[in-house]
Amino acid sequence: MTRRLNRLAAIVGVGASKFGTFEDKLGRELFADAFLEMMNSIDRGINIKDIEAFYLGSAAPLSFEGQAHLAPIIADQVGLANRPATRVEGACASGGLALREGIIAIASGLYDIVLVGGVEKMTNLPTSEVTDVLAAFSDTPYESRVGITFPGAYALMATAYRHKYGLTDEQLMAVTIKNHQNGALNPKAQFNCSISDIMISRLAKIKEKGQPVPDWSSEMDFLKDLQANPVIAWPLKLFDCSPITDGAACVLLVAEHLAKSFTETPVYVIGSGQASDYSLHGRKDLTTLDGAKEAAHQAYDMAGVRPEDIRMAEVHDCFTIAEIIATEDLGFFRQGEGGRAAEQGLTARHGTKPVNPSGGLKAKGHPVGASGVAQVVEVWQQMRGEAGARQINRDVHLALTHNVGAHGATCVVHIYERR
Amino acid sequence: MTRRLNRLAAIVGVGASKFGTFEDKLGRELFADAFLEMMNSIDRGINIKDIEAFYLGSAAPLSFEGQAHLAPIIADQVGLANRPATRVEGACASGGLALREGIIAIASGLYDIVLVGGVEKMTNLPTSEVTDVLAAFSDTPYESRVGITFPGAYALMATAYRHKYGLTDEQLMAVTIKNHQNGALNPKAQFNCSISDIMISRLAKIKEKGQPVPDWSSEMDFLKDLQANPVIAWPLKLFDCSPITDGAACVLLVAEHLAKSFTETPVYVIGSGQASDYSLHGRKDLTTLDGAKEAAHQAYDMAGVRPEDIRMAEVHDCFTIAEIIATEDLGFFRQGEGGRAAEQGLTARHGTKPVNPSGGLKAKGHPVGASGVAQVVEVWQQMRGEAGARQINRDVHLALTHNVGAHGATCVVHIYERR
Repeated sequence: MTRRLNRLAAIVGVGASKFGTFEDKLGRELFADAFLEMMNSIDRGINIKDIEAFYLGSAAPLSFEGQAHLAPIIADQVGLANRPATRVEGACASGGLALREGIIAIASGLYDIVLVGGVEKMTNLPTSEVTDVLAAFSDTPYESRVGITFPGAYALMATAYRHKYGLTDEQLMAVTIKNHQNGALNPKAQFNCSISDIMISRLAKIKEKGQPVPDWSSEMDFLKDLQANPVIAWPLKLFDCSPITDGAACVLLVAEHLAKSFTETPVYVIGSGQASDYSLHGRKDLTTLDGAKEAAHQAYDMAGVRPEDIRMAEVHDCFTIAEIIATEDLGFFRQGEGGRAAEQGLTARHGTKPVNPSGGLKAKGHPVGASGVAQVVEVWQQMRGEAGARQINRDVHLALTHNVGAHGATCVVHIYERR
Repeated sequence: MTRRLNRLAAIVGVGASKFGTFEDKLGRELFADAFLEMMNSIDRGINIKDIEAFYLGSAAPLSFEGQAHLAPIIADQVGLANRPATRVEGACASGGLALREGIIAIASGLYDIVLVGGVEKMTNLPTSEVTDVLAAFSDTPYESRVGITFPGAYALMATAYRHKYGLTDEQLMAVTIKNHQNGALNPKAQFNCSISDIMISRLAKIKEKGQPVPDWSSEMDFLKDLQANPVIAWPLKLFDCSPITDGAACVLLVAEHLAKSFTETPVYVIGSGQASDYSLHGRKDLTTLDGAKEAAHQAYDMAGVRPEDIRMAEVHDCFTIAEIIATEDLGFFRQGEGGRAAEQGLTARHGTKPVNPSGGLKAKGHPVGASGVAQVVEVWQQMRGEAGARQINRDVHLALTHNVGAHGATCVVHIYERR
């Protein structure tokens, strides 16, 4: 059965804060940065009074920042006090879920103009505590309490994938290298630098200290050096993992009939899919996310398009293996071929299927509740030709976002069209 | 502007777990109790495969139980793995927000059959830690971090109200006594006992220990004794405060055209309103919740009914003062007259405007994310004449629920019709 919304939503503005570590800011202040940029991005402007409702994706603001009930507080912060303000949580897919609730709310007829945002302020806690908070997104009695944190869960997937399809370290590294190349061109990225940049700066420090100079003649050499890139959970190493990040992003959705009154080039959300999945121990296959496949199926079906039609995608690369699996679950490559595709450059910015031109979670950063919305910011910029130095060199009239909570227990896919 | 949904939702089944303290159960297991009761409450039955999506209200499962990302985990627990499962958080209004998202999702055309539930497992932590978690629902830099927990916040409101309208202790106590009278008739209630029952049991213990017997000749005497009913935050005493509770509740929503295929007597949700509010320091008046008034206005407007039409209401009596303010914000009584109305018995089960026939949060218990959904369970039972010993003695064809997050930063009001 094809699922249909009573009416579609269009994006008419986007904004994002800088991603990184911001000791002196509250989450609500990062959100305000994103909101102000969004307000300024609307070609024909908007009166803030016309924004009718607010959906916020945030994964664990109580644990990270000691602030729950964040939606009305942020609404007040940005001048939207009194508006319906609803927080949605689906672990690292919280942002994607907030987008979906905004789209559904517009389709319901209740609102014409809805703000959707995501925020996470993660760096207040030490890394080990952040890992513990994130581990609570797993099925705790069966997973985190018996020792599986997320690097471990994704390492299990990588191991299963390696066994089944012969994944190589070089394939994982190709994802890292590509996403850092893109992130180096993204001024908002937490790691606004390529692996080469990182390598050169490390070499400079090593020489400064008079230590023995390592034999790195390429990015791959650097990533293969276990001193530079230590194992976190085999086969995943440090540079296979997305970082801990503070950041916020938001988009303004309007009912499709209003879109052109805000801009000549709105981006319509033509497909939306969402699915859940069993905990890891209940799955038949660890090399794919059934929830992502189902969410993608729903989104393609609603949009009436096929994987081969998609011109670019932002996918949930919390770990490099996750990007490889994502490109297969979305139907871009056959199962078992995602690693090779990355190695061959097919997912590079000017490849046949650009994936994560923003730098992805790996280089742009991963403020967990904001990531699903930040993906939409990149889609908007690429579709409108506003991505600057990282602009894809083909017209992007169809794009896709893929946002995953935990190890795929929540999956959300959206498809966008510029018309 | 009257807000309209593209189509209405109807309730065709409800269920609740027992409310109380359950050391040996996970939140997901309490939810399963509620779900099984709900499945059995559907007059003509349903195939579980027909449930298309799930919205969960839960306020702080990570902090209370170490389990975030609860929606897909509960979906799996009750046999709905793979369905879109979305958690909504609005502090103690999380359940009401989940209901509203379910209604919106049906109106969007995306789903015809949606499960809405709420759960909170609060008693794992000691009381002081629960209070700290709940305090994070306030505007923390301006409230909890400078010492205002929720009993304190509501005490401020009670003090302002007392000053402005001459609130008496007896008026607050009238709310406590009434809600315990109702709770005594509710087998699911955490305090399935009247204040008299509590007093008699205390007296028996006092006599057993040979201690001096207090001079209690009425429920009021008992509540006025500061040994029995100590001050928590003046003027609020122990029996002005709702308890800490484990519990879950759920309802099944279907698109209105399908309702009669599940039961001859569905309950239609004909009005829905939601609003936010400033933090306490930003408000003009502490004796009313502007968010509740706005949400009520929206709900009445959508439903096309007036406060005087409502035959019963479940309101958010997290503290006795909150119930008094609620009955005014909802337009049942004029501002400043809610306390007197309670004292005169107008809100009693057989009064002119029955409020909280379930026992309310005070006696039924307050598992914070579940409370907004548990209110709907009571509405369903009263509207269908299935409330047993606590059945209201007039036909309840129109009812209302009022669910508040924190000190009113989130407010949700729904109106129901049996037809």
